[in-house]
Parts: sequence; structure tokens; C-alpha cells
Amino acid sequence: MLPPDAFARACASRVVLDRIGDRWTVLLVVALSDGALRFSQLRTKIEGITPKVLTQTLRALERDGLVTRTVFAEVPPRVEYELTDLGRDLLAPIDAVRIWAEQNAARIVANREDYDDLPIRNSGRS
Amino acid sequence: MLPPDAFARACASRVVLDRIGDRWTVLLVVALSDGALRFSQLRTKIEGITPKVLTQTLRALERDGLVTRTVFAEVPPRVEYELTDLGRDLLAPIDAVRIWAEQNAARIVANREDYDDLPIRNSGRS
Repeated sequence: MLPPDAFARACASRVVLDRIGDRWTVLLVVALSDGALRFSQLRTKIEGITPKVLTQTLRALERDGLVTRTVFAEVPPRVEYELTDLGRDLLAPIDAVRIWAEQNAARIVANREDYDDLPIRNSGRS
Repeated sequence: MLPPDAFARACASRVVLDRIGDRWTVLLVVALSDGALRFSQLRTKIEGITPKVLTQTLRALERDGLVTRTVFAEVPPRVEYELTDLGRDLLAPIDAVRIWAEQNAARIVANREDYDDLPIRNSGRS
């Protein structure tokens, strides 16, 4: 077996990079960092996420073994989502990316505006 | 102005999260970590990236102020791409995500197989 190498097309780490690089995954994992939450609580916390995308992202994270889904036998049944140990382990690198994004967002938006204001850069080129 | 909050729909940091969460962005920034590279060198290093996607991703990173594009007046002209200081600053959090993906890829792939083997989990549910 070859060592993991995200640059290699066939490497599983690239597939994993796709999953954890997803915007909603990042927000979901960070949202669950303080403990278990219900579906409706996640929906409120992560502004703009649709129920469909939230369901799909939770399912994918459950499949990856990053999140557990627990159904409590109550009426109506209560369903909670919680990070697994593996999901909790992902928090450190993922939160570093989120913090970087928050700290540098204003600068990047300014860079984009500068770039778009330079007509020569917008002309066609290879 | 509100403090940056990636959970808020309108926050610029979420837009930035989208850009830097992109798989190709991660691979490109890491690929440039050792210094400037030409387009053809990047294409070779990042297996499976198409010229079109490489061009688009480089353009987006240039617009964000994370990468510079330098044309050297030679025949034929040499074009090199290099991380800016801001791009270099992004290396630490982005590389942590890549390393995590490489270290945990095998475990996540195994989790997926276990999940897919459980028929009860594949049945419809809300």
C-alpha cells in the first residue's frame, strides 16, 4: 500500500479532503463542538442551510464515522447528533481554517475588489 | 460592523470558507508551498486536475490575493505562480487539514464500508 498522498488522483485522502473541505461540513462540525444538538437546533445555528442539505450532510458525516445519530424513545421521538471521537479529533484542523477565514475575510474581499477594478487583468488571456 | 461569524449567512468569512475549502485550492496552495511553479509543473504535480480547472483555480486565488502570477519576458514567455504572504499564511491551517485527511483516510473509508453494510441504515428515514 502506498503512503497517503493527497496529490495522487487515486488516494483516499483526496476523497476525504473533498468531504471535510465542504463548507457545510466545516460549519456542522464546528456547530457540534459544544455537544449534541437536535436537527432544528442545527438549522437555527447554521444560517441559510436548507433542511435537505442539512440531512444530506449529517448522513454523509454519519457514514464517515464523524457524527452519531441517537434516537431517544420519547413521544415525539427526540433525535440528537453528536461528534464521535474521530469527529472531535477533526475539530482542531477544521477550526483553524474557520478562524483563518474569519480573520482574513475582509482582506480577501478587498483584494477581490482591487482585482476586479483592474481592467487589464479582466481581459482574455491564457 | 459585526464581528466575523462563519455561521451567519451574510458573513464574508463564509464566502472565504467556500474558496479555501475547495479541494483544488487546498492542493494548489500546498503544491506551491516549496516555491514558484509553472502551469505545466502544477498540472503534473496535482494529478487529475484539468487545464480548465487549474486555470480557474489559479485565477480565483490570484483574485483573492493568495497567489501572484508573474510573466517573465523570455521567448517563449515564462509564467510562474507563487504564494503571496497571505497565501503563505494560509498554509498552516490548510496543511493541517490535508495531513488530517491523509492520516484518517483509511479509517473513514472503513467507516463508510461498515455503514453501507448495515441494511437498516440504508432504509428510508427522515
